[in-house]
Amino acid sequence: MSKTYNTEIISVGTELLLGHVTNTDARDISEMLSKIGINVKYHTVVGDNPERLRECVRIAGERADIIITTGGLGPTCDDLTKQILAECFGVKLVRNETEYQGLYEYINYGRKLTENNYVQAMLPEGCTVFHNNWGTAPGCGFEKDGKIVVMMPGPPKECDPMFENCAIPYLKKLSGEQIVSHSVRIFGMGESAVDQIFAEEMNAMINPTMAPYAKECDCLLQITAKAGSEAEAEEMIAPVMQHVMDKLGDVVYGVDIECVEEAVMALLKEQKLTFSTAESCTGGDIAHRFTDLPGASAFFKGGAVTYTNEVKTALLGVDPVLLEEKGAVSFEVAKAMAEGIRERLGTDMAVSVTGLAGPDGDGVHPVGTVFIALAVEGQTYVRETFMGINRTRSFIRRMAGNHAFDMMRRYMSGLPVLTE
Amino acid sequence: MSKTYNTEIISVGTELLLGHVTNTDARDISEMLSKIGINVKYHTVVGDNPERLRECVRIAGERADIIITTGGLGPTCDDLTKQILAECFGVKLVRNETEYQGLYEYINYGRKLTENNYVQAMLPEGCTVFHNNWGTAPGCGFEKDGKIVVMMPGPPKECDPMFENCAIPYLKKLSGEQIVSHSVRIFGMGESAVDQIFAEEMNAMINPTMAPYAKECDCLLQITAKAGSEAEAEEMIAPVMQHVMDKLGDVVYGVDIECVEEAVMALLKEQKLTFSTAESCTGGDIAHRFTDLPGASAFFKGGAVTYTNEVKTALLGVDPVLLEEKGAVSFEVAKAMAEGIRERLGTDMAVSVTGLAGPDGDGVHPVGTVFIALAVEGQTYVRETFMGINRTRSFIRRMAGNHAFDMMRRYMSGLPVLTE
Repeated sequence: MSKTYNTEIISVGTELLLGHVTNTDARDISEMLSKIGINVKYHTVVGDNPERLRECVRIAGERADIIITTGGLGPTCDDLTKQILAECFGVKLVRNETEYQGLYEYINYGRKLTENNYVQAMLPEGCTVFHNNWGTAPGCGFEKDGKIVVMMPGPPKECDPMFENCAIPYLKKLSGEQIVSHSVRIFGMGESAVDQIFAEEMNAMINPTMAPYAKECDCLLQITAKAGSEAEAEEMIAPVMQHVMDKLGDVVYGVDIECVEEAVMALLKEQKLTFSTAESCTGGDIAHRFTDLPGASAFFKGGAVTYTNEVKTALLGVDPVLLEEKGAVSFEVAKAMAEGIRERLGTDMAVSVTGLAGPDGDGVHPVGTVFIALAVEGQTYVRETFMGINRTRSFIRRMAGNHAFDMMRRYMSGLPVLTE
Repeated sequence: MSKTYNTEIISVGTELLLGHVTNTDARDISEMLSKIGINVKYHTVVGDNPERLRECVRIAGERADIIITTGGLGPTCDDLTKQILAECFGVKLVRNETEYQGLYEYINYGRKLTENNYVQAMLPEGCTVFHNNWGTAPGCGFEKDGKIVVMMPGPPKECDPMFENCAIPYLKKLSGEQIVSHSVRIFGMGESAVDQIFAEEMNAMINPTMAPYAKECDCLLQITAKAGSEAEAEEMIAPVMQHVMDKLGDVVYGVDIECVEEAVMALLKEQKLTFSTAESCTGGDIAHRFTDLPGASAFFKGGAVTYTNEVKTALLGVDPVLLEEKGAVSFEVAKAMAEGIRERLGTDMAVSVTGLAGPDGDGVHPVGTVFIALAVEGQTYVRETFMGINRTRSFIRRMAGNHAFDMMRRYMSGLPVLTE
């Protein structure tokens, strides 16, 4: 992008100032913009108050080239974003016939028809309309006095897809350049290690660019290129991507996906395999994470959450003598749990977790010690991990789940299933 | 509070503008302030840039009485909040000996000692120091030119407890009044129904005040009073609380707690009872939510996640004929699942869930149909619910869990265990 567009996101809504909701819109929009090389310089949150909003728009006009608003596009008297922005930029609101008809049909579809709903079809004259496929209030974008204004609905489930599908293409066009970005997802190597490998070349790169980011329990490397066309940008990225893959090797679990369980789902689908789970300290989190993916039922048959020794015996058939001799948090019990659930449910694979998520320990291992096992036909792998001191319960539980999915991914990809 | 204090929260950190992290600090601080009657008028997010931060502080000084910053208190060169705020308000930074010694000891405790760490002990002259029991960088509060400035560390696990334990008492003192607030948590009645019951009296109330808030799958009623002392405020709240309890009855699951599983945990503890779970569409979420509470293992023995008919039979002993005749999503199967897991794990109670979280249905029931059962000695209760159309998968799963916990709570409290 030849010109640098500084951006301010103004989120409108008293509920944000009362702390009833978190401003995830600003986070999500910022993330999407950073991927296409547009710099966000400010977020502002202001209540449903015309005077204060007007003043915020004035301040934004002085310090930003692109002003993005979220919220306040609905039909009630609180919803004043369009009116104020139109007023500030001297643009008329006119009725958009397509949106008007659409609202008419939507509202008639089993809903009470009230006049104030039609206010949503009033849009700035000459704007690009972003039709709302995820709700009712349309968004829009317009240019005036050298500024670009984009207005988005507040509910994240409307704002996020509309920004991605409507606002991003609208903003990309402004520059006459296409921006393409891919994220390489990594588990088993930390952000700082990734940074060390590529630091020198990253500093020297201008286009494409490359940057590592830490996520809660894994990390990613973002590769971004700008060119005259999407194909050209992809071509510029290809050799960089190849180089990154060669350097990182098998710690990469996917490109442009969100989590390691997605990679596992794709492999299960490809190889037509099923799995089951036996969870102690993760308390059902592995099953819950996987079944959050629509379509999970074709691959995940079920699992057991076994918090006590007796239940490990009752549901998984773990030998009470083994539990007595080795302790519940042990290599041997992890192995017996995975084998037990796999046999009982007749799945191709099974994973198990037993460990100490804290705050209490077992007097033998420190909190953060977790054994993860993967049982397949004729073989069981056990990984012993230590998550580090001072980790929260939820971090240890999530990390343990990542390890379980990582072992499945490695096994199905024909990679060594690392055991530590 | 006699004077109205308008507040602006300025969050400092480029990672917020890149969308790598969500601004939960501003949300959490806003929520805590609203409970003590302090109005937050603006949130601002700005990067680690001295000029832009300086300008944001100038703007905040024009429109707010209390300026709260989060982030930028650490030891690296990015961390410039204290320097800029001190400069803007003409206050010197001086070394705080207690904090200096504390840092010295902390850093020596297994950490490399570098000079830049001591920068954290440099604090505005005459300020009230908020010692950081949850990390290293201290926070602080000071008054200058009629403005109140409060600075908090950025990491939420430091910011939240420090704000609650240090900043809230500091800000409460300013008014010479004490503010006490209690939240009444409700499941089984929506926010608008609660609003309808109390609308008229709420509008007429000045001190104490009362307001209903919607949460994801339940709601709450917040009662707040201001008085010369905490005891006085509590006395003012008592009759209102009594009135609310009388009106709402048994849909109240607790006061000043966060979720219905906490209420269940307290009852299990009091009555020395155990439970187990059998989950289909919730996929382990009920087990996961309960085991997120430290100490869960004394009451929760384990559970099964049964995604297929075969697994319902293998792990819970559900009769295949029953599954064939009634279907997996049915009153009878919910009952058999709860009874099966209770018997196998030998727990006092057991809950089960079977339903359709979507996107796919079973051709018989609409998506959103969920059966929840509670089995106890000699009796099994089954609740049939329909979560409404167009609900997300995660909403349906969470709501189903709330129903399961609600049934346990009602049973243990001697209330009718409603079956619809």
